[in-house]
Amino acid sequence: MPDVVEIGVGKVARRGYHFYDVSIVPSRRTRDVDDVSTAWQLDAYRFGIPCVAHPSDATMSPATAIKLGQLGGLGTLNAEGLWCRYDDPEPLLAELASLEDDSVAATRRLQEIYAEPIKPELIAERVKQLREAEVTVAVRVSPQHTLALAPVILDAGIDILIIQGTIVSAEHVSAHDEPLNLKEFIADLDLPVIVGGCTNYQTALHLMRTGAAGVIVGVGQDVWSTTSDQLGIKVPMASAVADAAAARRDYLDETGGRYVHLIADGDIETSADISKAIACGADSVMLGLPLTHCEEAPAGGAWWHSVASHPKLPRGRYASPDPDRHGDMEQLLHGPSVDPSGTMNLFGGLRRAMAKCGYSDVKEFQKVELTVSL
Amino acid sequence: MPDVVEIGVGKVARRGYHFYDVSIVPSRRTRDVDDVSTAWQLDAYRFGIPCVAHPSDATMSPATAIKLGQLGGLGTLNAEGLWCRYDDPEPLLAELASLEDDSVAATRRLQEIYAEPIKPELIAERVKQLREAEVTVAVRVSPQHTLALAPVILDAGIDILIIQGTIVSAEHVSAHDEPLNLKEFIADLDLPVIVGGCTNYQTALHLMRTGAAGVIVGVGQDVWSTTSDQLGIKVPMASAVADAAAARRDYLDETGGRYVHLIADGDIETSADISKAIACGADSVMLGLPLTHCEEAPAGGAWWHSVASHPKLPRGRYASPDPDRHGDMEQLLHGPSVDPSGTMNLFGGLRRAMAKCGYSDVKEFQKVELTVSL
Amino acid sequence: MPDVVEIGVGKVARRGYHFYDVSIVPSRRTRDVDDVSTAWQLDAYRFGIPCVAHPSDATMSPATAIKLGQLGGLGTLNAEGLWCRYDDPEPLLAELASLEDDSVAATRRLQEIYAEPIKPELIAERVKQLREAEVTVAVRVSPQHTLALAPVILDAGIDILIIQGTIVSAEHVSAHDEPLNLKEFIADLDLPVIVGGCTNYQTALHLMRTGAAGVIVGVGQDVWSTTSDQLGIKVPMASAVADAAAARRDYLDETGGRYVHLIADGDIETSADISKAIACGADSVMLGLPLTHCEEAPAGGAWWHSVASHPKLPRGRYASPDPDRHGDMEQLLHGPSVDPSGTMNLFGGLRRAMAKCGYSDVKEFQKVELTVSL
Amino acid sequence: MPDVVEIGVGKVARRGYHFYDVSIVPSRRTRDVDDVSTAWQLDAYRFGIPCVAHPSDATMSPATAIKLGQLGGLGTLNAEGLWCRYDDPEPLLAELASLEDDSVAATRRLQEIYAEPIKPELIAERVKQLREAEVTVAVRVSPQHTLALAPVILDAGIDILIIQGTIVSAEHVSAHDEPLNLKEFIADLDLPVIVGGCTNYQTALHLMRTGAAGVIVGVGQDVWSTTSDQLGIKVPMASAVADAAAARRDYLDETGGRYVHLIADGDIETSADISKAIACGADSVMLGLPLTHCEEAPAGGAWWHSVASHPKLPRGRYASPDPDRHGDMEQLLHGPSVDPSGTMNLFGGLRRAMAKCGYSDVKEFQKVELTVSL
Repeated sequence: MPDVVEIGVGKVARRGYHFYDVSIVPSRRTRDVDDVSTAWQLDAYRFGIPCVAHPSDATMSPATAIKLGQLGGLGTLNAEGLWCRYDDPEPLLAELASLEDDSVAATRRLQEIYAEPIKPELIAERVKQLREAEVTVAVRVSPQHTLALAPVILDAGIDILIIQGTIVSAEHVSAHDEPLNLKEFIADLDLPVIVGGCTNYQTALHLMRTGAAGVIVGVGQDVWSTTSDQLGIKVPMASAVADAAAARRDYLDETGGRYVHLIADGDIETSADISKAIACGADSVMLGLPLTHCEEAPAGGAWWHSVASHPKLPRGRYASPDPDRHGDMEQLLHGPSVDPSGTMNLFGGLRRAMAKCGYSDVKEFQKVELTVSL
Repeated sequence: MPDVVEIGVGKVARRGYHFYDVSIVPSRRTRDVDDVSTAWQLDAYRFGIPCVAHPSDATMSPATAIKLGQLGGLGTLNAEGLWCRYDDPEPLLAELASLEDDSVAATRRLQEIYAEPIKPELIAERVKQLREAEVTVAVRVSPQHTLALAPVILDAGIDILIIQGTIVSAEHVSAHDEPLNLKEFIADLDLPVIVGGCTNYQTALHLMRTGAAGVIVGVGQDVWSTTSDQLGIKVPMASAVADAAAARRDYLDETGGRYVHLIADGDIETSADISKAIACGADSVMLGLPLTHCEEAPAGGAWWHSVASHPKLPRGRYASPDPDRHGDMEQLLHGPSVDPSGTMNLFGGLRRAMAKCGYSDVKEFQKVELTVSL
Repeated sequence: MPDVVEIGVGKVARRGYHFYDVSIVPSRRTRDVDDVSTAWQLDAYRFGIPCVAHPSDATMSPATAIKLGQLGGLGTLNAEGLWCRYDDPEPLLAELASLEDDSVAATRRLQEIYAEPIKPELIAERVKQLREAEVTVAVRVSPQHTLALAPVILDAGIDILIIQGTIVSAEHVSAHDEPLNLKEFIADLDLPVIVGGCTNYQTALHLMRTGAAGVIVGVGQDVWSTTSDQLGIKVPMASAVADAAAARRDYLDETGGRYVHLIADGDIETSADISKAIACGADSVMLGLPLTHCEEAPAGGAWWHSVASHPKLPRGRYASPDPDRHGDMEQLLHGPSVDPSGTMNLFGGLRRAMAKCGYSDVKEFQKVELTVSL
Repeated sequence: MPDVVEIGVGKVARRGYHFYDVSIVPSRRTRDVDDVSTAWQLDAYRFGIPCVAHPSDATMSPATAIKLGQLGGLGTLNAEGLWCRYDDPEPLLAELASLEDDSVAATRRLQEIYAEPIKPELIAERVKQLREAEVTVAVRVSPQHTLALAPVILDAGIDILIIQGTIVSAEHVSAHDEPLNLKEFIADLDLPVIVGGCTNYQTALHLMRTGAAGVIVGVGQDVWSTTSDQLGIKVPMASAVADAAAARRDYLDETGGRYVHLIADGDIETSADISKAIACGADSVMLGLPLTHCEEAPAGGAWWHSVASHPKLPRGRYASPDPDRHGDMEQLLHGPSVDPSGTMNLFGGLRRAMAKCGYSDVKEFQKVELTVSL
């Protein structure tokens, strides 16, 4: 049953499946779309939709994080993003709305803009703005900066901490610094922590054992990211999520009942992808690129992945705004839609997929039947 | 033998095959093309070709439904289509012949046009028109509107009722309304009912047990429909039809001889696809997009799937007319063809495929050998 | 080991491989290219290269059939082609050199031109021309016309008879006419007969049992043919040839030593395809489209498959001449090449592939190792 | 477990995997990128990066061979390239920087330019130039010319000899000449020899038994080479490297400890490909096309494979310079990068991939986990 192939004599590989390899199969029952709930609860925080924002400056500003929260999702503030590097990043965002598509010039400009140091005082200020809006406040920090920035972030009074890098392991090795010990760090906190990304059963299980409330599965890959071209790491998301769901079951058993939430981050462009992520076992999805399609997008609809500005090895291409955007974030998330491409009314699409398959809540929908095509 | 893969630890999926994954293999015998019959009989109704029209306004008007009936197929009237919403839909159809290809503007206009309420009296009027032409009269209604519209439809004096939605199950659950109980509803009727779509063995079997004379397999997907992008549901048609054919065999055994007809609805663009649908076990095919290619097409060759006008979640793109159409419906169905693309002389193509493989009737042709490519 | 998949419950299909799915693997030995022989012998006729011309008027005229014979291959005269319908087809060929690419107008014109009846006296005249050039004379006729045309063809004094249709079976069934009994027909002849196309083990074996000297495997599919779109028949050539080679072994055993030659006809565009056909078990290849690339091509490099002119169901698209042709037939077959695309120096490519794998003759090269990619 | 399919009855093939079929899976541990070593040692020669230059004149001149050596790689001088045919090839290289992309004219010009005889005295002169620069000196010669050119090459005082052809076997058969006996030839030398290419376990093992210090795996295929179209030979590199690594293990056992280095040559365009080659078992990679992207490229960024100039069967297309080049060889190899496509900072990408997977040296990284997608 384990789907293993022999690459060459003595060298094996697991076969992995992407979301585009799988489809959902309705079976037996159907249900009224109005009887379906898309609610998601993480720790004490309840959300109308199973949605966390990817911490890209292209989609998340304090304003859009608040808006997303008001619409039922979880907005995020990137402690290493432009809003925590610049007093007023809006002129930069305006500039970033109009660079040349997929160009070296755009990459160079991203590198320059992100060379500006992080200003801890700005983190506190931005968090305050979110708190005042009375939405759940989540801040993202990379593992490398966690020890340095955590004090200011936590002092600012947040609800959820997201420790996120391309690949985060429970055991980081360093010859130079004392690395972050996730398990000890999380044990000392009294707020839920989401960590990731990870890519398979073992890394997911190890991250669960750190005490995290949620684990991010995937590296946020999208059509503009180039991690696969540069590192050779391309996560077959359907398999990665299903593997992590198996880890969640085993960890639940090992702990006698601790349920860790899985947040799928990668290859999610359409409502179909959201449905498939949940069908594979995710509790929630992380939205990056899809959030550029609404009017509120901070850089006018332009997109760059958070690793696209890396000073030595940028791993994403700059995408200029899609001229064909229409509608605001509410329409994007909840409809009504005027665009049949699957990028509008994202959670209405999830709701309808659940209805067609007869499921009434997100957790149940993890059991829906799948088919794989050639 | 069952072709199951492990997506991730503990999560399995059936491998599904599309029509484009399979090809027909001639073996042993050949036959004169003139000795081949493409006849199909459903209940008391006999057809020269195994063909039911998909109930899209882009292809079915009363006039084209009559023409199709005269040419040996089964035309359909959509009780929820434009002809049952507007006294004179022809100006609208003329407008719909000239919208901008695959545009949001076209989707918006479809939504507006279909917002007009259904007028029961028009259903009766259109049915009368079909009856007068002495063709077999089939009317399509969605499960949601069946209880409300069935009285007027049945009173109008039809031959075949088609209850069709994207996904129809034998067990619809609703917290608000008393849902349609298909089994009881059909038992009370004395005319053959076709129901669907469904996507696998179980849903097909359950629909057969409702007493339906025919079951639609598939969700009508074509290159312009976007159900797969929005719901994550993409039906591997070769597998779905073969699965439903297995359900038909089992139901035949369970009932001691009740044969339920399978109508394949999805991914049928060419005569090759018709041949493959039957080779996989279908008794007939449902034609949508292919019927836009004839001169009689009501909207001048434009195409939109019946779900393309959904007010909240449109699931199909508007396709402007193919400027390269040639020939009338007779040539489209029976030739002669002047277009080698497989979209003209559709049933001449089926006939010739059967001849090359040595089969003389459609039911026998369900046994033809298949091959699958990578 | 037999590579069978389950399409749906109870419906199986063989997995088939195309030439583009397989590659040749050199192993152990290499050899000087000058030590390699590409010779092929069919019955008493010896050829420098394992090459038969596909009987399309786009590539075969009496002049090019003679040229091909002089260059080591087997040219063919199509008894149902333009040279046997028109006294002087050259003005038509000139017209056919300049039609609009892949157009309905071109298909219509082909249908008109081929509506002209076959003139038996022209067959005799064309054969005479070939005999005078002292090349091996092969004439192609379809199974439908074999009984009517065979007398005049045989009287004309040919060397090899090719009975070829899209699909030829050893058991053709007809309600109207007494069909051709291949076995009796061939038994009465004292010249070698090549028959086909066929597509799998059984049809190949049955055709061998008719007494044929050679069997054509495949239906001549190329990028311009549309048999797969119209009939659903697409032959996975690597598998079909390998299956037919197994039939050849079994027939050799069953007859105590009668070796039937396999001529691969389909998906052969490059010297790589020739090598792969032989690697799968073919003794020779049938060249259609590749022969349009030389200066001598009768219609200036335009291409249409012999079924592209069918009056009711044309199954091939007209291809206007490739403006990028260079070189004559000798360069095309034997080099030197100035075009790295694999379409020039076709048999030099075969020779070099054999050398790189250490084989010295075509029959041995049937054993070369293959690999399959995803 | 061995992944063998049945092409047709009785004809089997190994399933092979390309680099683009596989991805790297980080598991468990991560590591600081600064703690990772990319060092490689062949015999007495130590390199900062596991990189050998493909001996194409498009990328290797004496100047760029020296530069590559200074940057940690192994530059190569092609004893059969332009620098050993012409006193001053620079005007020709300037011309070769501006031919028409993928044209027959370019192929013809390459054939003319390479028709110039090799001048042994130039080999000595070029080697002297490299020696004076105090980099490791490697010279490439084809098996056909090895016996004739070896004396002058060896006399010139080189460090490493590379005997390289498209396919090199340990047993070359010739009816005319006494062929090169690699085993005897290498035994007589007191410097390390690299030989290849080879494509599977057996050819790799046989080449190891010749006494070679390194074996080249693959035929140098890239997007511009057409060996697969002409010879039908397309090497699934992931499988070929893994097979050769198995041969290396077996040879290590058979000899009680002789470790032969594997140099992957084919389908390497990005840093991801470098990582995958090593993940499959390579010790080093051979870079051809990727080296055209730097400012120092001798023909201004144009590319032609060394077999593209073959007088009878050219097997590569001429590629005009990519206008979008940026940066020098140091940036190309070591960054910083301003191009997210994976073609800049090639070994920084390898280093980071190793870090994300927790490995600290190249040999260890051969154990990293892989996944295969459909």
